[in-house]
Amino acid sequence: MKPQPASVGRPRSGARRLPAASAREEILDAAAELFAQRGYAATSTRLIAEAVGIRQASLYYHFDSKEHILAELLEATVRPSLDYAAELERQGAAPAAALHALVTYDVGVLLTARWNVGILYALPEVATEPFNRFRAERERLRQAYRALAAAAAAGGGDGFLGDLVLGLVESVIGMRRDLPVAPAEQLQRAVAAAALRIVAADPPDADGATAG
Amino acid sequence: MKPQPASVGRPRSGARRLPAASAREEILDAAAELFAQRGYAATSTRLIAEAVGIRQASLYYHFDSKEHILAELLEATVRPSLDYAAELERQGAAPAAALHALVTYDVGVLLTARWNVGILYALPEVATEPFNRFRAERERLRQAYRALAAAAAAGGGDGFLGDLVLGLVESVIGMRRDLPVAPAEQLQRAVAAAALRIVAADPPDADGATAG
Repeated sequence: MKPQPASVGRPRSGARRLPAASAREEILDAAAELFAQRGYAATSTRLIAEAVGIRQASLYYHFDSKEHILAELLEATVRPSLDYAAELERQGAAPAAALHALVTYDVGVLLTARWNVGILYALPEVATEPFNRFRAERERLRQAYRALAAAAAAGGGDGFLGDLVLGLVESVIGMRRDLPVAPAEQLQRAVAAAALRIVAADPPDADGATAG
Repeated sequence: MKPQPASVGRPRSGARRLPAASAREEILDAAAELFAQRGYAATSTRLIAEAVGIRQASLYYHFDSKEHILAELLEATVRPSLDYAAELERQGAAPAAALHALVTYDVGVLLTARWNVGILYALPEVATEPFNRFRAERERLRQAYRALAAAAAAGGGDGFLGDLVLGLVESVIGMRRDLPVAPAEQLQRAVAAAALRIVAADPPDADGATAG
């Protein structure tokens, strides 16, 4: 990340998208909206700059390319859950309780982000170099789910249990698009309870862990 | 669908992609490969025609637009499972057994298609008119999962159970990309067993339904 100058380029035209945000944050927010709604290929850096109300040159001061904007957006869908998984490990939480907590948190991240950026995981561009860090971090999250699922599983944890839980968690990305009326908190509880049933672990406590 | 003439355009250059296929099938196959691997936006009808070894005009004899090719490919990922759900209903299968059978079948369709076309569900274009029939058929498949999950569920079946099962089934699309070494049959069994655990139903029989 480049250092933030006091001001880049001309004053912005029009109102800011996010009152307290930096130009960098406004670029990310505008790009997320355009990528998620118009599509990645149909969105140019010029269009992003126009949506923010800055010149295209100013956008390139903050980001080397459109790929780098997308990479940062995708990393932001994974990194908080990865940090939270590490925090749960430090706390020494019991596996089923930790799995329930991680699923609840991760679903919350995916459902409450301003734009449904996870929909872009499927882009073929994500296999290329600018996305190496995103793919590595998502792989680490997969490993965290595998470890927790194996430790929590009544039957020992073979058979893709962690992968199935990750798949179930990420399926809320499609649900957010297809079922826009589903309340996020209800979906969070339902997915966390289903994840424990997938690994055949007992719910860690009474609240929210016995939906269905 | 337009009637099939004896021959359209010039003889094809080079070998056929699929020995026993019609030109129409070869166009669909080439488009599926290019869409899934290069991306939909980066694939022109000209590129598809070149991959088949026909002229672009011949492609337009079979399909009105690139959207219509994609729509037919996407419908083919959903329709067999929809037909199978109807067949299970005609047979009067018990709900848990029917859910297990439908999940196994549907995962098989998604994993054994020549190209991983389901990866294209996330395209923003899919919200537009040429995809109305695909979206309607996928919605009917969702309703079939909801009905089976509710009927099979030990606890009555509220709380998105059918949606969660559909999400789990479709998560194999991402797994096919991210875990290319996973054996399809093992994944089929694991997903079907997990679907029954999600609805908290007993497995219908001993083979393959108690993975994990």
